[in-house]
Amino acid sequence: MGLRIPRNRKAIKHSLIKEFYHQPGNIPGTLIIDENAEYPEIVLIDYNSQAYIRKKIETPELCVPYLDTTSVTWVDVQGLGNQDILQRVGKIFELHPLVLEDIVNVPERPKTEDYDDQLLIIARMVVPKENAFGFHSEQVSLILGKNYLLTVQEEPEHDCFEPVRSRLEKAKGIIRKSGADYLAYALLDAIIDGFFPVLERYGEEIEELEEEVIIKPTPKTLQKIYKIRRELLQLRRAIWPQRDVMSALMRDSDDLIGEEVRIYLRDCYDHAVQVIDMVETYRELTSGLMDVYLSAVSNKMNEIMKLLTVVSSIFIPLTFVAGIYGMNFNTEISPYNMPELNWKWGYLLCWGVMLGIAGGLLYFFWRRGWLERSVPIKED
Amino acid sequence: MGLRIPRNRKAIKHSLIKEFYHQPGNIPGTLIIDENAEYPEIVLIDYNSQAYIRKKIETPELCVPYLDTTSVTWVDVQGLGNQDILQRVGKIFELHPLVLEDIVNVPERPKTEDYDDQLLIIARMVVPKENAFGFHSEQVSLILGKNYLLTVQEEPEHDCFEPVRSRLEKAKGIIRKSGADYLAYALLDAIIDGFFPVLERYGEEIEELEEEVIIKPTPKTLQKIYKIRRELLQLRRAIWPQRDVMSALMRDSDDLIGEEVRIYLRDCYDHAVQVIDMVETYRELTSGLMDVYLSAVSNKMNEIMKLLTVVSSIFIPLTFVAGIYGMNFNTEISPYNMPELNWKWGYLLCWGVMLGIAGGLLYFFWRRGWLERSVPIKED
Amino acid sequence: MGLRIPRNRKAIKHSLIKEFYHQPGNIPGTLIIDENAEYPEIVLIDYNSQAYIRKKIETPELCVPYLDTTSVTWVDVQGLGNQDILQRVGKIFELHPLVLEDIVNVPERPKTEDYDDQLLIIARMVVPKENAFGFHSEQVSLILGKNYLLTVQEEPEHDCFEPVRSRLEKAKGIIRKSGADYLAYALLDAIIDGFFPVLERYGEEIEELEEEVIIKPTPKTLQKIYKIRRELLQLRRAIWPQRDVMSALMRDSDDLIGEEVRIYLRDCYDHAVQVIDMVETYRELTSGLMDVYLSAVSNKMNEIMKLLTVVSSIFIPLTFVAGIYGMNFNTEISPYNMPELNWKWGYLLCWGVMLGIAGGLLYFFWRRGWLERSVPIKED
Amino acid sequence: MGLRIPRNRKAIKHSLIKEFYHQPGNIPGTLIIDENAEYPEIVLIDYNSQAYIRKKIETPELCVPYLDTTSVTWVDVQGLGNQDILQRVGKIFELHPLVLEDIVNVPERPKTEDYDDQLLIIARMVVPKENAFGFHSEQVSLILGKNYLLTVQEEPEHDCFEPVRSRLEKAKGIIRKSGADYLAYALLDAIIDGFFPVLERYGEEIEELEEEVIIKPTPKTLQKIYKIRRELLQLRRAIWPQRDVMSALMRDSDDLIGEEVRIYLRDCYDHAVQVIDMVETYRELTSGLMDVYLSAVSNKMNEIMKLLTVVSSIFIPLTFVAGIYGMNFNTEISPYNMPELNWKWGYLLCWGVMLGIAGGLLYFFWRRGWLERSVPIKED
Amino acid sequence: MGLRIPRNRKAIKHSLIKEFYHQPGNIPGTLIIDENAEYPEIVLIDYNSQAYIRKKIETPELCVPYLDTTSVTWVDVQGLGNQDILQRVGKIFELHPLVLEDIVNVPERPKTEDYDDQLLIIARMVVPKENAFGFHSEQVSLILGKNYLLTVQEEPEHDCFEPVRSRLEKAKGIIRKSGADYLAYALLDAIIDGFFPVLERYGEEIEELEEEVIIKPTPKTLQKIYKIRRELLQLRRAIWPQRDVMSALMRDSDDLIGEEVRIYLRDCYDHAVQVIDMVETYRELTSGLMDVYLSAVSNKMNEIMKLLTVVSSIFIPLTFVAGIYGMNFNTEISPYNMPELNWKWGYLLCWGVMLGIAGGLLYFFWRRGWLERSVPIKED
Repeated sequence: MGLRIPRNRKAIKHSLIKEFYHQPGNIPGTLIIDENAEYPEIVLIDYNSQAYIRKKIETPELCVPYLDTTSVTWVDVQGLGNQDILQRVGKIFELHPLVLEDIVNVPERPKTEDYDDQLLIIARMVVPKENAFGFHSEQVSLILGKNYLLTVQEEPEHDCFEPVRSRLEKAKGIIRKSGADYLAYALLDAIIDGFFPVLERYGEEIEELEEEVIIKPTPKTLQKIYKIRRELLQLRRAIWPQRDVMSALMRDSDDLIGEEVRIYLRDCYDHAVQVIDMVETYRELTSGLMDVYLSAVSNKMNEIMKLLTVVSSIFIPLTFVAGIYGMNFNTEISPYNMPELNWKWGYLLCWGVMLGIAGGLLYFFWRRGWLERSVPIKED
Repeated sequence: MGLRIPRNRKAIKHSLIKEFYHQPGNIPGTLIIDENAEYPEIVLIDYNSQAYIRKKIETPELCVPYLDTTSVTWVDVQGLGNQDILQRVGKIFELHPLVLEDIVNVPERPKTEDYDDQLLIIARMVVPKENAFGFHSEQVSLILGKNYLLTVQEEPEHDCFEPVRSRLEKAKGIIRKSGADYLAYALLDAIIDGFFPVLERYGEEIEELEEEVIIKPTPKTLQKIYKIRRELLQLRRAIWPQRDVMSALMRDSDDLIGEEVRIYLRDCYDHAVQVIDMVETYRELTSGLMDVYLSAVSNKMNEIMKLLTVVSSIFIPLTFVAGIYGMNFNTEISPYNMPELNWKWGYLLCWGVMLGIAGGLLYFFWRRGWLERSVPIKED
Repeated sequence: MGLRIPRNRKAIKHSLIKEFYHQPGNIPGTLIIDENAEYPEIVLIDYNSQAYIRKKIETPELCVPYLDTTSVTWVDVQGLGNQDILQRVGKIFELHPLVLEDIVNVPERPKTEDYDDQLLIIARMVVPKENAFGFHSEQVSLILGKNYLLTVQEEPEHDCFEPVRSRLEKAKGIIRKSGADYLAYALLDAIIDGFFPVLERYGEEIEELEEEVIIKPTPKTLQKIYKIRRELLQLRRAIWPQRDVMSALMRDSDDLIGEEVRIYLRDCYDHAVQVIDMVETYRELTSGLMDVYLSAVSNKMNEIMKLLTVVSSIFIPLTFVAGIYGMNFNTEISPYNMPELNWKWGYLLCWGVMLGIAGGLLYFFWRRGWLERSVPIKED
Repeated sequence: MGLRIPRNRKAIKHSLIKEFYHQPGNIPGTLIIDENAEYPEIVLIDYNSQAYIRKKIETPELCVPYLDTTSVTWVDVQGLGNQDILQRVGKIFELHPLVLEDIVNVPERPKTEDYDDQLLIIARMVVPKENAFGFHSEQVSLILGKNYLLTVQEEPEHDCFEPVRSRLEKAKGIIRKSGADYLAYALLDAIIDGFFPVLERYGEEIEELEEEVIIKPTPKTLQKIYKIRRELLQLRRAIWPQRDVMSALMRDSDDLIGEEVRIYLRDCYDHAVQVIDMVETYRELTSGLMDVYLSAVSNKMNEIMKLLTVVSSIFIPLTFVAGIYGMNFNTEISPYNMPELNWKWGYLLCWGVMLGIAGGLLYFFWRRGWLERSVPIKED
Repeated sequence: MGLRIPRNRKAIKHSLIKEFYHQPGNIPGTLIIDENAEYPEIVLIDYNSQAYIRKKIETPELCVPYLDTTSVTWVDVQGLGNQDILQRVGKIFELHPLVLEDIVNVPERPKTEDYDDQLLIIARMVVPKENAFGFHSEQVSLILGKNYLLTVQEEPEHDCFEPVRSRLEKAKGIIRKSGADYLAYALLDAIIDGFFPVLERYGEEIEELEEEVIIKPTPKTLQKIYKIRRELLQLRRAIWPQRDVMSALMRDSDDLIGEEVRIYLRDCYDHAVQVIDMVETYRELTSGLMDVYLSAVSNKMNEIMKLLTVVSSIFIPLTFVAGIYGMNFNTEISPYNMPELNWKWGYLLCWGVMLGIAGGLLYFFWRRGWLERSVPIKED
């Protein structure tokens, strides 16, 4: 099984494609190592209700002794950048070649599959970006065995498992008294709960846009709305299959997951449904915002056109009047040729006519309500 | 189980997020006490067909004696602001830690869950705001036991249970002769029925907007439409799962709910479906209103442009004519240089030409129907 | 069970709300009498293959003797304006309190419910308005018993059962030889068939709008389209649950409906599906019309703008030329100062230039096709 | 069973309604004869593997002798214009009154119904119009019996069964060796296949519109798009239930259709699904075209506005400059009053200023790209 | 079974129709040979774990000896241009006439059908175009037998099976040790994987359009968006039924596909679902892009209108002022006739007034923010 570098690195850098890219035409079970992937770090945690060990190990083989004990062993591989290590991990845990492929050749769609004495769960973890808008998205694969749990993450950073590790260390709750299945549940719960802070940001952003789109719509607003829609699409694609995973885990009769843990999974399923609710609601809101934006732009155009029309309609007739009296008909030849020019009050009369026209038009526009500036005032 | 303050109070104040916010990464069963939540008041009602007691109790333990009798006991906890009291309530009613979490860590999605000799029902209650537009939304959790009902509300105000309490007190209908299951039904029925007055307001508002959007569309109109759409989304998210709850309660074979009460639940289910019908119809209407708004804005623009075009098209040619005779070609040098200026009837002829042009254009516009003001008149 | 007047009569007059309004928080089984409802008239029809009696009766008790015979008895209560009479009807037919509530507290969603030896069917009847556009909508409740049928209508007018009564009287078809179940079918069939003339009117209206929207779109057109959409929504809400009712009646194993009548119900179900087809098709057409309207308004704007642009683009440069030769540079001081003014052919040359510009621009606009009036011609 | 003339012939002429019109309030089983319907022609085809007879018969009774033989008899009634003949046909084939009603009171929704020893199949046949755009749509009813097939068409023309008749005559394929069920399949297959040429035309039209909508969008284009959408809706309504018919025929355990014919029906079902695919794809394309049209109209408006803006922005300032020097301030009174008029190079300087302004503005517009004509060029 | 040339070659050249075209009214089992189709090439591959033969054969009969051995035989027919050869292939593999029709009369919808000891799988293969945008789409039919696989492609070029052939030749993976079912899986997997590079291109294109649509929207942009939407519709129509095929192959209890191969098919199914995810996401994105385009065009119009309004509103009043002092009222006759013309500072005052007006308007526009050029800046 050879190491292959993706044909076209340039393309892969695009975020849209990266999330989907799948190397075509390989032998099933081939591992594709992305040359930019990080070197795997392996963290071993072994615990039972009395003891707790956490250490970083250099070679995967070092975890074998722990696997043979009755304590729960959690082997957490962080990074997909070395084919040799990943295959040795596969050998130690006796993974089916397709399982190893699913773990390494990311991205894979969230799913769960049952392999005799192992349960494969593919999940997708999202972590909000530190300072910027948006989120990191990363695949986490869980392989649950009798008394061990193997997890494989794409990179060492951006991990939402810290609270679980801390509960393990401080023996909070029932986690140290429970088996590997409870640990798997705790991690899945952390993954689902990780969607909430991400969505919270979109909620805030949408609320800001709701004002901006009416008060001061700019092309930037449009871009923001589109961006949110696009990222909500990503979240949606991540969470829907995850809900199905939860549902399958709750339902399937599998020895690896105990009855009491299933009750907890029901809770986790509820949260997944809540995330879906949020994503769908936000999607509908952004789609409504798009409509509002379009209307607001049209409204703004109306404002502009009104101003142009008011100015033009008032001054064009006046300019015409002025033009009349700028004509050079010879007043000396005939008394019918612009006698106004020689009237004593001619000029003032002319101004009178012009002011009359202007006043009449202003009254007309005022009656139509065109002179009020229709700036929307935010309703509470 | 520690008390934790939400990381970011500022964010939580937003209504969009508040409704969804879920504290990530906690130990299952942790109670999260919102520091702004109100201190719980506990109201105890105990009744059978003969007797009826209603009192406010200070400590939850005071209800224990009532629970042991055969009369129906309704313990109503109003407010989530004290962890200690809530945990003591949990202990008295022997609630599963996840049940207690579902009750306290609001918001939870409406659902029903069966725990041996208890039935958990999470519902969402809406109460119209007193003077303003909009509604309060609050989670109500019901725990139905053999001969007791525990309800937990988010706050003491805004409660739609008063009619039920009054029926209990005045022994109206069969409520005093029935068990705790009938009481649970009566409360659920009150919750579902509480959606109708809220929706009634939206109905009225939509009818007003239907006129406004044609007669006098302003950006304010747009905002109102968007606001209604958004709040209908909220109602929709609240009522859909509630229908599923009703459906599950009707179907499930559970000893806690008697056969005759199931017939009443069928009625309640019908009402939930009716609420959904209304919400969906109103949603379609507002979406149609948005289209109408956009068209009305375009129409208004047409009106503006027509006016501008009529004014410009009439006066620009006239101004040109006036401009012609304002030219200073030397009439003395050549008879071809603007001889009109020296004609006897030159000026009047010029006016004739201009009036002719203006008349012709007015006729042209009148034929095209541009001179009629196309103000929509409301059709009955 | 007290009589209650709706809290807010003003609101109820709105058509949107009236159709949905549901009194919240009542004791189940309470009858809500609308004070504007009409006093119930009771029409009794009793028949078998030999005999036929039809009479209006004053008190409901007068129908009791007929119920005891083997002939089929159809008691038709028209109007919901008196609580006492309705409760006496309920007593005579031994109706469950919830059934009586469903019948009286209109509107209820169309549904069917099985109560031991009675079958409740709630249907919605539409009758086109006499002279105006639109339709009356009214709830009809059918209670089918062994050899009787009780129907309750909201008001005495607007009834589509006349053809059935006439068939009964003239003994047309097999209706007089069949039981109460066939009568119920015949009424349901009349109700469903009553949708066709209503929809026919919308079909005609849509066809007229299809022309109007292209030839002469006005804000009135928009209003009509919106109105049709809204009323189609109402029809849709009425017919969808009715289809489910038909489907349930066909399927359910119930002694009250005989095998041969089920075959007829299949026909009735087909018609309901056809009505749904029509409603959905009309909805799609009106939604398409809305798009066409928007485009037509934009097109009209283009026409307006084209005219403005043609007029402005031609006359503004000409006016500029005229303005040039209206300048007062002193031609006597220098030969470079507007020598054209003193040329012999200066004025004619100036006209030549202006006509040249105008001609060039006209040619330019003609090439672009802006001078053709793009009035749509109806395609056959 | 009386003959009734539709109440409102004017309405029926409309195509939208005609397709749906259903006479309300009749006795089940009443035949409604459309007075414009054509007089029925009856064509009898009788065949087995050796013999083949085809003749037009005057009275339906003439086919009785053929029905009694073991050969397959196909009686094809073309036209619904005579009640007597249709009822005699009903008597000969012992049709249930509802079957006869379904056949005669067109239009009926495509469906299949099982009546003991007969199978009723209602289908809808479409035939492209000869020279014009669009299609004829006609109901075909098939009644399949043991060794006979009765088909009833609305009119004698526009029939897509000719290839089947020709195969029967020339004994091509296995049709002469098979029973009436294979004949029914062959006709259904011809009906489904008849949708393809109709759709082919829409495909061509859509491809033409795809160019037209970008290159030269006119209101006519809009009308064409709407027309296609509307006709695709008709096709959709015709084909969806037909697929269900195929599916029901394949699945149902019915003696009248043999096992080997069911395999052929699977093929026919596939074609129906393919037609649905096409219709839905075309619908999505036309809906996309509508969007493109709207955008193209907006683009055209932009073009118009750009031209107006360019012309106005250049000439309005120039006209202002010319206006300045057309003022009549008395230069003799003060050296500050328009001394430019008396400069030697005044006029030329003035031209210089004006050319400078014009050049600057042209450069500005050229930089913004407004001077390029943005005519779309078709991409291959 | 005669050879028929499609009635209307002109129409068939259109890509929309070609993909759907189905010859109506033929005898089931008739082969329709497209006269432009390429002459079939036949490639035979025969292998077991030890041996591997690959050769091009001239006549189909040459493959018969290989079929009788226990080694796996893959006969790959490339091209549909000769009826005789195709019928001989049909005879050798004992294909049902309908199977042969499905294979030859392309296009057929992807599906799978079980014929006793053969399994027919119709799939659709897409291959990206070499240099241009877009893809080739081709039907591939697989007939899986006991130890052979017959595949039929539309043309010899554009084939995504090369990696599979190479794995066969180099004995990579388990393919040489497995049966014909694994080979069928490998080909199906290659077909599904072939969608990814095609979609990758659309992903890149969409990302480019996301910038273009905001920065510089032109009618060309619109065309590109429409084109992508249309091609995604094609891909969607190809992949959805393929997913159903995978699902059916996984589920159905068929001896021809072994248990271990079913596990691999599960993987293949996952990839199909991933392709669907991508297609649907891209469709939503392009539909969002269309909205953004429309808004961007409106924004651009606003920009244009703003410029026009600013220029007109400033210069029209100024021109009016200049027009005033171009009037020829006789200043000698009366002191009220334009005395300004004879003031010493008249001209300068006039300029002062004009600059004041211009300045005031500029300030007004600056306050409204109309003077900033609102060019969108790409957000990262």
